[in-house]
Amino acid sequence: MAKSVAFTVNGGDSLYSYSKNSTFQRKAIDAAKELINEAVFERLDTESFSSSAFRVTDLGCSVGPNTFLAVQNIVDALEQKYQSQGHNSQLLELQVFFNDHAFNDFNELFRSLPADRRYYATGVPGSFHSRLFPKDFLHFVYSSYALQCLSKVPEEVADINSPAWNKGRIYYSNSEDQVVKAYEAQYAKDMGCLLNARAQEIVCGGLMAFVVPGRPNGVPHTQVFSNKVVELIGSCLMDMANKGVISEEKLDSFNIPLYMASLDEVEAIVKANGCFSIERMENLTQEQPQANVIASTLRSGMEGMFREHFGDEIVDEFFDSLRKKLEESSSVLKPLTSISLFVLLKRTGN
Amino acid sequence: MAKSVAFTVNGGDSLYSYSKNSTFQRKAIDAAKELINEAVFERLDTESFSSSAFRVTDLGCSVGPNTFLAVQNIVDALEQKYQSQGHNSQLLELQVFFNDHAFNDFNELFRSLPADRRYYATGVPGSFHSRLFPKDFLHFVYSSYALQCLSKVPEEVADINSPAWNKGRIYYSNSEDQVVKAYEAQYAKDMGCLLNARAQEIVCGGLMAFVVPGRPNGVPHTQVFSNKVVELIGSCLMDMANKGVISEEKLDSFNIPLYMASLDEVEAIVKANGCFSIERMENLTQEQPQANVIASTLRSGMEGMFREHFGDEIVDEFFDSLRKKLEESSSVLKPLTSISLFVLLKRTGN
Repeated sequence: MAKSVAFTVNGGDSLYSYSKNSTFQRKAIDAAKELINEAVFERLDTESFSSSAFRVTDLGCSVGPNTFLAVQNIVDALEQKYQSQGHNSQLLELQVFFNDHAFNDFNELFRSLPADRRYYATGVPGSFHSRLFPKDFLHFVYSSYALQCLSKVPEEVADINSPAWNKGRIYYSNSEDQVVKAYEAQYAKDMGCLLNARAQEIVCGGLMAFVVPGRPNGVPHTQVFSNKVVELIGSCLMDMANKGVISEEKLDSFNIPLYMASLDEVEAIVKANGCFSIERMENLTQEQPQANVIASTLRSGMEGMFREHFGDEIVDEFFDSLRKKLEESSSVLKPLTSISLFVLLKRTGN
Repeated sequence: MAKSVAFTVNGGDSLYSYSKNSTFQRKAIDAAKELINEAVFERLDTESFSSSAFRVTDLGCSVGPNTFLAVQNIVDALEQKYQSQGHNSQLLELQVFFNDHAFNDFNELFRSLPADRRYYATGVPGSFHSRLFPKDFLHFVYSSYALQCLSKVPEEVADINSPAWNKGRIYYSNSEDQVVKAYEAQYAKDMGCLLNARAQEIVCGGLMAFVVPGRPNGVPHTQVFSNKVVELIGSCLMDMANKGVISEEKLDSFNIPLYMASLDEVEAIVKANGCFSIERMENLTQEQPQANVIASTLRSGMEGMFREHFGDEIVDEFFDSLRKKLEESSSVLKPLTSISLFVLLKRTGN
């Protein structure tokens, strides 16, 4: 059966916590910083908003230093803009809504909020594919390395009776066309839901900026670094199934709900929604991280999902073999494309 | 040294969790239900508010069934009022802000949110004695069994060089006059801060309702049930100090930051603030709970504080002896007054 799997990163601050293993995602935040700055200065008509406070949300914020860093970039840009307009930025009231699944470690998030923050902090539990806020509430929606997560595995790929059944694999990128299409359709549906929800929540003129790992237009799914990494996860699991450590059935019923979209795909979905103008789209190139960094990053983000599906006892063995496989595969990974997409949308009138 | 101690109830849902030990507080919520209903119907001019969504906060919400029950009472009243005005209550958007210290178990709170709730749920970490929201943001502020907590122990009662040093005692109610005055002053200061903060955050015409354990006007502190219970805590600790289980120094440096105010005191503080009209004040009488219920209720609410000050090893012994002492003291407790205060304030123009 297809399962609805939520990505929930490891909480706390121990060895495999997301907190300690998110330098890769941090680079994407740094790369987006200047773009966020420009978005606030050039595309945001702050003086047209009627509310006295400015409301920002970080969708899929997870927990760790990145969470606060990304938000601080937005806060800094807003304060600078207010100052440049001759206002006293001390009077600007900012409210930040940290959103993630209810299984995110909000306790850790709340306890590690920067003491010197210049905003009112709130937590919003729930899926960003659904409504989270009242109408016309938000001014700036941000999301970093979260919107590549599907709301669930497409049902047909885990359905033994479907032509899209993904037997022996855990991902779409090197699978049959029907599997790819199922993932593609799930992504379009999820992003459609997300845009519908945000279209109601974002005030007219408000912005939405997101960064996700992606795929350059026209490049096949198999040639994308992140996809190859996920395939290696599958290959480790297949090895373990062959050795009898996990059952074939467990393997067949496991699929990873991620999708690496291209800007063309995103553009088509935004246009179909019709409530946003596309203000900017960029491919951000990024360095490939080292094998051990990839392994720890994946563990901090996916350990919970593996524990739940395969049981606690395989976790160490699995992530060990994954690290080894990543090291052995460096020559295969090297030539692959590794990019993030940056997308900036503005809520237009209805 | 005086310490800033935050009351943080036991999370989770185990034997001594607040979740499982809050039927006493539940009764106060039930008693306030009708009063909340009347407040919403008779004192709240919902049609004068410009925001389309209605914003409610529960200050010191803690975690457990009571948290959701109290909020549901307000939500139900608002929906009924909208219906009675000929509106479609399905269109009413409600946003609920659950507030408590950052050390409250927000993970538990978020994971136990009612699935069928008709409001957008958010968590707000921080002290309700400080600002938590932007200006003119809230329509209804509610608090149940939280505002009796002081922001800290008054410094002088833990200062060996002060005439208000509270040697050998852990509370004010049977202490020297100077100790009582120090607690009284801390309460007035804390409530002053709370009202100042809320005066900025509540829209003109918005309401604030709270229920706290209290003291009838004119009744001495020593004649109040809750105070006597806290004195018994002190007496157990003194026994343990005499037996050498805890040091005298530990005992002398421990004070419980609670205060049982009377309506006269609350009225004076509200008038000094000047931003609120008093719409209603009531003494709600309540039954005294059984000794074992009191003991578990206290444990669920104060265990963390005892662990932090006296160490893990004394906790079981202490709460055991407290339960026994409460049982033995039933004839002393019986004739004492046990009431809650209900206070309803409205934010007036500046």
